[in-house]
Amino acid sequence: MAFAPNGLITLTTDFGAVDPYAAIVHGRILSRYPAARIVDLSHGIPAGRQDLAGFWLARAWLDFPPGTVHLAVVDPGVGTDRRVMLALAAQRLLLAPDNGLLAEALRGHAGVRWLGMDRQLPARLGLEPLSRTFHGRDLFAPIAGSLASGALQAEDFGAPAEPADPVPIPAARPAADGIIGQVVLADHFGNLITNIDAQLFASYRQPTIEAAQRSWPLLPAYGAAAHGAALAVINSFGLLELALSGGNAALDLGLGEGMPVRVSDGLTA
Amino acid sequence: MAFAPNGLITLTTDFGAVDPYAAIVHGRILSRYPAARIVDLSHGIPAGRQDLAGFWLARAWLDFPPGTVHLAVVDPGVGTDRRVMLALAAQRLLLAPDNGLLAEALRGHAGVRWLGMDRQLPARLGLEPLSRTFHGRDLFAPIAGSLASGALQAEDFGAPAEPADPVPIPAARPAADGIIGQVVLADHFGNLITNIDAQLFASYRQPTIEAAQRSWPLLPAYGAAAHGAALAVINSFGLLELALSGGNAALDLGLGEGMPVRVSDGLTA
Amino acid sequence: MAFAPNGLITLTTDFGAVDPYAAIVHGRILSRYPAARIVDLSHGIPAGRQDLAGFWLARAWLDFPPGTVHLAVVDPGVGTDRRVMLALAAQRLLLAPDNGLLAEALRGHAGVRWLGMDRQLPARLGLEPLSRTFHGRDLFAPIAGSLASGALQAEDFGAPAEPADPVPIPAARPAADGIIGQVVLADHFGNLITNIDAQLFASYRQPTIEAAQRSWPLLPAYGAAAHGAALAVINSFGLLELALSGGNAALDLGLGEGMPVRVSDGLTA
Repeated sequence: MAFAPNGLITLTTDFGAVDPYAAIVHGRILSRYPAARIVDLSHGIPAGRQDLAGFWLARAWLDFPPGTVHLAVVDPGVGTDRRVMLALAAQRLLLAPDNGLLAEALRGHAGVRWLGMDRQLPARLGLEPLSRTFHGRDLFAPIAGSLASGALQAEDFGAPAEPADPVPIPAARPAADGIIGQVVLADHFGNLITNIDAQLFASYRQPTIEAAQRSWPLLPAYGAAAHGAALAVINSFGLLELALSGGNAALDLGLGEGMPVRVSDGLTA
Repeated sequence: MAFAPNGLITLTTDFGAVDPYAAIVHGRILSRYPAARIVDLSHGIPAGRQDLAGFWLARAWLDFPPGTVHLAVVDPGVGTDRRVMLALAAQRLLLAPDNGLLAEALRGHAGVRWLGMDRQLPARLGLEPLSRTFHGRDLFAPIAGSLASGALQAEDFGAPAEPADPVPIPAARPAADGIIGQVVLADHFGNLITNIDAQLFASYRQPTIEAAQRSWPLLPAYGAAAHGAALAVINSFGLLELALSGGNAALDLGLGEGMPVRVSDGLTA
Repeated sequence: MAFAPNGLITLTTDFGAVDPYAAIVHGRILSRYPAARIVDLSHGIPAGRQDLAGFWLARAWLDFPPGTVHLAVVDPGVGTDRRVMLALAAQRLLLAPDNGLLAEALRGHAGVRWLGMDRQLPARLGLEPLSRTFHGRDLFAPIAGSLASGALQAEDFGAPAEPADPVPIPAARPAADGIIGQVVLADHFGNLITNIDAQLFASYRQPTIEAAQRSWPLLPAYGAAAHGAALAVINSFGLLELALSGGNAALDLGLGEGMPVRVSDGLTA
């Protein structure tokens, strides 16, 4: 398989930044592969939200060079018999519990090869016994380290398998007079990231955005609106995003995940 | 002494993740030892809680390879005449202010060698004058860097000394009909980690856990309970832990540090 | 120019620690310069507060070795025509949007060389098209990587230019009977860091500090006050700081940014 490790491993988890859970994963990776270089992609995924882990991983994984191993552990099923999946795509590896996380992260990406972990792999790698509450430490960290070092080849991880269906991020859908989508999440700035890809309204002559009983003028940059004014932008991921210039739309307006957003073409109305 | 540095340094502090205090420690380590590889174990220890720093360090330090230097700075006595201690255990070094932090971290570990810092060491290393409010920067960072680089040998750090007594994490104790312990802390998931080691009730035929006027069935994994249900697990550190499956026991139930927890044997009742 | 890169890059942003924005910057740096070593100085700068980014960068940049590239992205003007500035000082490079951030960081530092980015640089480096909302990813990360690798020399970044004026951290000023300053920020411990440099009152025989209708005795260390007592210290940056020993002055007393602080000489009163 076309994977040549570069020694980089990224971590995406819901472990938070207070307890040392993420650091313990670093330690176990480094114990297995001392030269590993580890980047914390995020440990702030909301607890148990593999859909949001997949959403963010989808927007970041290609920003790391070919040869990177992306490990994602949002794992409410830890200690049950859920499977472990490995995906090879674009010369990167992605490793996660088989709960839809990777299926969301790789949605729409062509040419993914999926492998389900051989149930004998933990024993072969000397990882047993495993705890039943912290497979990030006991299972995923050493496997990621072995994949990143080259000691474990992807083809020795397991056999081809179909990943579990994702708990999908809701899709935007066509409506009578345009597109209906929703807010996927509010980011650190309180900006409201929607599920509406800008390509969906690329043909509109005058895109008109409405949400929360107000209109959000579509502008090229945050700073193009007056301080404090509401605006919409096409963000750096190509998604429609609602914001307050110099403010925090989520906190100041009390808006967030799930809020409906409508895009119509003002010139056809 | 049997310590061969591997270049890794971990940091455990109460500095938080907002101000650049931890990064300044990185900078001073790298200024002393440019090849250092630094892992943030946690900067989220509650302010001034060396007991909790010791508790978490105890659960993480052996997950890093032999040759690692673990630096822990929770230091309410900074700028007073408190000592600085170095411990050598299991081919790792642990460095901290002498306020009980390391004694808690190494409680029960056999074969620890303790050294108290020679009062001339800062001058010998060219570290003076020191500030009286930030020894993480002025004292601990360069010493950790010098230990990790091998420029400073542990035996040149100081003379054998007894560490200060810890502010101990309270111990579970036997009671008339079982064991009485308490919650040590609520973690990022709101799981309630107790001071009750599973070995204390390994002989019980039917361990029965009660806390907060309810029973917590002991299950093998979080996912073995219905969504939202209370459960107890033996966590990945071998400690009894109380949780809500798919929920946050600390926030949803208003429970936390210090709450009594009782374990009895249902078959003897 | 006297800059020999050491491979280190620090990041100072208002991106927060929850979304993967900072990690994406890591990824783009590593894609450009795989051997980069990246230190997160802070991602907790309050949103849009380039003055505070400059304040913290001023207190940390010299703690990293010569040859370090400091990248700071607090960039409310992203996507507008604001310039990009590079500063060379003390054998380090500092790169940021030209919004006063670096001018605040380097205030009072002699011998700074300032360069404004050549508008053709992004095209020359193959960075176009740029998004209009995330120049940390599209512009600053690859430029920082190229500067840190040596592939881009500082002199090829652009021409000498004057930086924009900072939104300055307010200066302490002399008053009839002493000095009037203010709290710049409350740190993670709730300690109130002021803009009053200790040199301003070095000649006072009995410095007397008043703020919030109370007196704050000037002591050598936090631990020199009784537990819970208010005190002032000269902190590790040489600034006057107000604190509660073992407490959190900001939260416990409801104090913070902008609060006036007066220093007078008790012996002249």
